[in-house]
Amino acid sequence: MNNWTQRDKTAIWHPFTPLEAMEAPLVIDKAEGVNLYTPEGKRIIDVISSWWVNIHGHSNSYLAEAIASQARQLEHVIFAGFTHKPAITLAERLLEILPDNQDKVFYSDNGSTAVEVGIKMAFQYFYNKGISKKRIIAIDGAYHGDTFGAMSVGERGPFTEPFDPYLFSVDFLDFPEKEKEQQVWKHFKELVETDEVAAFIFEPIVQGASGMRVYAAELLDRMIALAQANDVICIADEVMTGFGRLGTLFAADQLSHKPDIFCLSKGLTGGALAMGVTTCTDKIQSAYRSSDLMKTFFHGHSFTANPMTCAVANASLDLLLSEECDANRQRLNERHIAFMTKLEAHSMVRNPRVMGTILAFELNTERDTSYFNEARHHLYPYFIEKGLLIRPLGNVIYLIPPYIISDEDLDYTYSTMLSFLDEYNDLF
Amino acid sequence: MNNWTQRDKTAIWHPFTPLEAMEAPLVIDKAEGVNLYTPEGKRIIDVISSWWVNIHGHSNSYLAEAIASQARQLEHVIFAGFTHKPAITLAERLLEILPDNQDKVFYSDNGSTAVEVGIKMAFQYFYNKGISKKRIIAIDGAYHGDTFGAMSVGERGPFTEPFDPYLFSVDFLDFPEKEKEQQVWKHFKELVETDEVAAFIFEPIVQGASGMRVYAAELLDRMIALAQANDVICIADEVMTGFGRLGTLFAADQLSHKPDIFCLSKGLTGGALAMGVTTCTDKIQSAYRSSDLMKTFFHGHSFTANPMTCAVANASLDLLLSEECDANRQRLNERHIAFMTKLEAHSMVRNPRVMGTILAFELNTERDTSYFNEARHHLYPYFIEKGLLIRPLGNVIYLIPPYIISDEDLDYTYSTMLSFLDEYNDLF
Repeated sequence: MNNWTQRDKTAIWHPFTPLEAMEAPLVIDKAEGVNLYTPEGKRIIDVISSWWVNIHGHSNSYLAEAIASQARQLEHVIFAGFTHKPAITLAERLLEILPDNQDKVFYSDNGSTAVEVGIKMAFQYFYNKGISKKRIIAIDGAYHGDTFGAMSVGERGPFTEPFDPYLFSVDFLDFPEKEKEQQVWKHFKELVETDEVAAFIFEPIVQGASGMRVYAAELLDRMIALAQANDVICIADEVMTGFGRLGTLFAADQLSHKPDIFCLSKGLTGGALAMGVTTCTDKIQSAYRSSDLMKTFFHGHSFTANPMTCAVANASLDLLLSEECDANRQRLNERHIAFMTKLEAHSMVRNPRVMGTILAFELNTERDTSYFNEARHHLYPYFIEKGLLIRPLGNVIYLIPPYIISDEDLDYTYSTMLSFLDEYNDLF
Repeated sequence: MNNWTQRDKTAIWHPFTPLEAMEAPLVIDKAEGVNLYTPEGKRIIDVISSWWVNIHGHSNSYLAEAIASQARQLEHVIFAGFTHKPAITLAERLLEILPDNQDKVFYSDNGSTAVEVGIKMAFQYFYNKGISKKRIIAIDGAYHGDTFGAMSVGERGPFTEPFDPYLFSVDFLDFPEKEKEQQVWKHFKELVETDEVAAFIFEPIVQGASGMRVYAAELLDRMIALAQANDVICIADEVMTGFGRLGTLFAADQLSHKPDIFCLSKGLTGGALAMGVTTCTDKIQSAYRSSDLMKTFFHGHSFTANPMTCAVANASLDLLLSEECDANRQRLNERHIAFMTKLEAHSMVRNPRVMGTILAFELNTERDTSYFNEARHHLYPYFIEKGLLIRPLGNVIYLIPPYIISDEDLDYTYSTMLSFLDEYNDLF
């Protein structure tokens, strides 16, 4: 353990990290493109985009310049009573690329707060209209963040158990895997038709943290239609799926019926700085446009719409909306699909799948698929040693790389994964 | 309404802002020192540090350079399994200036998340030890943030009413104003001695959003001692009071008994970027150091410990810990106290008070002191027109300026306040 890792252990408590029997964290000194570099010069390819945020690679000079220039001009200003051009431009551009029904942008600081804002907007919508609808529907396996509201609408399990007494009650649907679609639909219909449901929150098409699980866009589409017909507000948590991750700019682009509220973060700033955004329809906001002060949406964070963060998000949109980025996402998708055919043939692989720029599969271990499957403790150090940052969810291995990853780095990633699969039974 | 304000209204929903009958927000194009500038060149002195964050003034070149340089080197990296020098250095420096009992730093993204982390740390501490203590004590009038956990431990009132069905239950103490100290102490003692209380959360010495209300450090000190003797975890929300705001670096420096957990934000980055920090004692963390994976603290945000944000927080500490900053805080305090004697003599002023760099008083209106007192709707535009950003909490007028504010700008601020008080009865 070098001096910095010792100092780290002495002073820092890391997120989602057991405190015993863990390898010391690796010190990273600089990063460029898809590469992270340790002080010793070891290169690690970040094929998970640092928790799925880093869509254009690291230390991108175009993003860095946007931040630096804004820092010298207007680093921050209170966003109540004041506004600024980077926030206005960003809001307009987001509304331009989101589905047409989206009308207003509310800024916050991360994915959890974007979700909290979305939930609160929905609850207060009915409160302001004097309608008593208090239930909310979510999906088993969901992950929406770690604050109490976001935890409440997420999977109840080991992550939340210490906090269960403090979470509000939610109607959970089973995860709508193929065989359960009919049953989930029936349950959903029953709930929605009680006329007691305020909102339905979901990760559209792909659930991230539960293991990159895919469900049918067609079913979700029907659910949204039914919900909206019953005046249930549909909240799409596109924190992971947004900004091109599923090929289309948003997962909702693959649906005919558009959610009422969107929660965004991660790719929003190109992975540079923390920011959350919640957007909504005019209908939602209309319930708050009143001379009655009590109908105000009393939510706000000190750094709401920080100008530097808006500036880098604008710069990230410049890159995201370029032909080059589009071509890169297309290329990534095609290469993933080609690699998937190799995976399909492998005895150690279960359920390989590609959704846009994401590739995922389950390692065929004896234990059930779960975050706590012990395979993860073999996998992570194996790949780090090979210079790849792959962070399995239990025995689910996935790639969610920056869109700019080169064919050469992809080839190395794929071949290292295949070697790993070939060696697995001998190694562990 | 110019083009940008119209575009703002079309695309953006602002925090804590009624949607009807409000003046359009002012566009700010650049800022320097204590000054905000509109595109037309109007200067507005930011005497509330943009929601209490901006301790060194705006667009500070030293802070800007720290951000720019980090942006080009390592803009971001996942903080699970990885670490970096800006985060390690910042954690060490925070622990160096916090009370000696603080041992570990957990990063998040804003004040609300810092509070959520603090509460969760406390609840899971007992959960991990197999002790059933589930109650939490807070103080009437508290404001700890806008996420569901933070709202739960805050004042239940108009801000939270639409969300009350979703907030967990909390034991609230009356605000310990002078006459109620005995009663609050008795109530607190009864609660703590039930042996059912996990935590006690408070804004130390000064409650911010409830109107810069001061209570006795001596009482709080005794409460912390009693709580700790009964194994109740004390959580200090120093989001507003931290980083020199009350004169001392932290409010807890004015207490003999030190809280177990600190929640920090606002001044942490010098007001440049959103960041939250929660620190705790070794005792708290020890309950999580286990080979049992289920005792892990499963909390984390994508941008936890963002390197640029850490870099600017380090730069802000350089400035904060300089003799110049110390002298500025001292000067601000002395000038506030001198001005307070003028306020004391004024018939329109009730209860003037100075706490470190904060000056506050109540406007002597007929209605009760409250956030919704209508005086605020006269006050805000009056001062904006005079080039001062003062954002009253109801009829509570306060100054919480950047520490660098010049004597000249202070003189202008004070004299404008006096003119306002002299003219009030004629004006409104």
